[in-house]
Amino acid sequence: MRKISILGSTGSVGTQTLDVIAMHPDAFEVDGLAAGSNISLLLEQVRRFQPRRVSVSTPELAEVIRGELPSGTKLYSGSEGLVEVAAGGDADLVVTAVMGSVGLQSTIAAIEAGKHIGLANKETLVTAGHLVTALAARKGVKLLPIDSEHSAIFQCLNGENVGDVAAITLTASGGSFRDYTREQLEHVTVEDALRHPNWSMGSKITIDSATMVNKGLEVIEAHFLFGLPYDQIEVVLHPESIIHSYVEFCDSSIIAQLGNPDMRVPIQYALTYPQRWKSPAQRLSLAEVGRLTFREMDYERFPALKLAMDCGRAGGTATTAFNAANEVAVARFLRHEIPFLRIEQIIAGVLEQHVNTSDPDLEQIEFCDSAARQIAAKL
Amino acid sequence: MRKISILGSTGSVGTQTLDVIAMHPDAFEVDGLAAGSNISLLLEQVRRFQPRRVSVSTPELAEVIRGELPSGTKLYSGSEGLVEVAAGGDADLVVTAVMGSVGLQSTIAAIEAGKHIGLANKETLVTAGHLVTALAARKGVKLLPIDSEHSAIFQCLNGENVGDVAAITLTASGGSFRDYTREQLEHVTVEDALRHPNWSMGSKITIDSATMVNKGLEVIEAHFLFGLPYDQIEVVLHPESIIHSYVEFCDSSIIAQLGNPDMRVPIQYALTYPQRWKSPAQRLSLAEVGRLTFREMDYERFPALKLAMDCGRAGGTATTAFNAANEVAVARFLRHEIPFLRIEQIIAGVLEQHVNTSDPDLEQIEFCDSAARQIAAKL
Repeated sequence: MRKISILGSTGSVGTQTLDVIAMHPDAFEVDGLAAGSNISLLLEQVRRFQPRRVSVSTPELAEVIRGELPSGTKLYSGSEGLVEVAAGGDADLVVTAVMGSVGLQSTIAAIEAGKHIGLANKETLVTAGHLVTALAARKGVKLLPIDSEHSAIFQCLNGENVGDVAAITLTASGGSFRDYTREQLEHVTVEDALRHPNWSMGSKITIDSATMVNKGLEVIEAHFLFGLPYDQIEVVLHPESIIHSYVEFCDSSIIAQLGNPDMRVPIQYALTYPQRWKSPAQRLSLAEVGRLTFREMDYERFPALKLAMDCGRAGGTATTAFNAANEVAVARFLRHEIPFLRIEQIIAGVLEQHVNTSDPDLEQIEFCDSAARQIAAKL
Repeated sequence: MRKISILGSTGSVGTQTLDVIAMHPDAFEVDGLAAGSNISLLLEQVRRFQPRRVSVSTPELAEVIRGELPSGTKLYSGSEGLVEVAAGGDADLVVTAVMGSVGLQSTIAAIEAGKHIGLANKETLVTAGHLVTALAARKGVKLLPIDSEHSAIFQCLNGENVGDVAAITLTASGGSFRDYTREQLEHVTVEDALRHPNWSMGSKITIDSATMVNKGLEVIEAHFLFGLPYDQIEVVLHPESIIHSYVEFCDSSIIAQLGNPDMRVPIQYALTYPQRWKSPAQRLSLAEVGRLTFREMDYERFPALKLAMDCGRAGGTATTAFNAANEVAVARFLRHEIPFLRIEQIIAGVLEQHVNTSDPDLEQIEFCDSAARQIAAKL
């Protein structure tokens, strides 16, 4: 019986993680669930999976659900509650699917407690990759990627020597506006942006796909996860999202991972690694798909990706500033406060004012994060 | 220093194996070379690689070159000579790139002598797969595939559990006539057939690609090499030959191996396995390729493939009869004795007369082989 805790259980990755767990009821046990404010869904999950620990975002919300919990379930709230679910329980593996920097603190707590991590929180590696990977190595904890791209690379590296890698390539669908010109992007709406062609995901990540910020964050994550320099990390446009990413080795041989877009496959792989278990995900027939297409990434069309890679190369707190600026800008776009193209202008504006701190500790990262957010809110 | 012997050194795989060895002069040493009748090329190879043992097809040819050999090089001939080069020397690995059933005997001798096999001779597994794989297992000898498709599957299985395989798929370019109708095939010439769109290979295998017999033989080889039932071996048309083959696992995840068509990559992998070494093969850029296409295999358009798979399922000597009939038919086509479509008719005719012997020993296989050849010569 593998015991799993989920941080962010009511989000897209969280609910799909519970789908995977429900498919293998004899193999998994839910130790803890942490959610934000979607109380009704959380209560449904609690009734179904009977976790030992539950946490919600505020003490007030905790009081709302206290009477509804099974007697054996402990209730927590706030960021302390998140840390309690992450690190306090008996979980063997913690799926970190909360968004934002609150995910970093709880992920670090889980690693400190020796729990393997199913990594779906971007901030963990984007803002503190140097600290987190070192800590995981020290604690003998596995960082198992849940993003389809990183899971693909991780699978392609099975049985291989990372020293033999010539390059890894992350595929990018291009997002909702992949065929729009820069001019056409000026007038797109929030509703347009939320229509992702291939993947059903949360709204933040769907916008990040349209700006290509998401791919930029993934490049930075890949750098830390696989210990590869940025010169060995490439991005190619692949509208069909069938090849999820691939690895080129020094002998010119490329190993790729493919499948229909279905997050349950990488989620399950993180939960069952190094084993593979049966999945109800639809089998891929390449004959049915008929064709796969590829285009060079256009860094002028998608300047945010280039900015992200520049921040990655700069290191230090640059990636934290990039990520914080983007989070604020996307939230403003989703509130209809700014037009779509203003997102990347805000990121660029924040980075212009950013003073880089190299090899930052957590406090410095948090300071940079909140400073960048303040600037981004006003730009 | 890895010591290599090559059976069939003047053929396509043989010369490319020497190209690979020449790229890594400090890592490889040529122990033995066996060739047929291309004496001038063999002598060039002997001067360059200074093997300890050399064999040619007949005692007469041996006398022709005796005076030209370095003093330390021993000279052999005939099938005994082939066995001597395969099994008598100090090679760690023997590349079996001779064509025809003479390859089987020498491959078995090499395995008996405990040598790892770089497998490029089809007859070894097609006609005696049950004997050869059992012997290799008993001797602790690795059968390292050199065909691009089998090397691809072999690479995709790195670090994986064969029990988790749902299916493997061999890709097929479709050969020289992939876009021809059955009617158009009636009048094609030898010269037309020898123009393979993607791979530069010997004439026999190029014809086998056009009839899809080659893919049939590969399916049978894959069955023995990876221990998978025929229901788990599929074929898909992929005209670009960029995805060399792929494995689907039980969790719906597909791992594929890709590259520009260059036999030096799978050859080198067999020579360096489990390591990967640098290769001068051209790097694959999917953005440059632009698109990959796939179509269902059409077993009515390519009936020889279906015949091969039926023989595989029947087991026993059926695959030996299939292979022998095809060899004779292709030779007759290459001599302009029969039209192209007669090749598959001859195979079908031989199989109609074939009486299957299950679990055959080598003698029974040889008997079936020569009986099938006699029939095929007259049909």
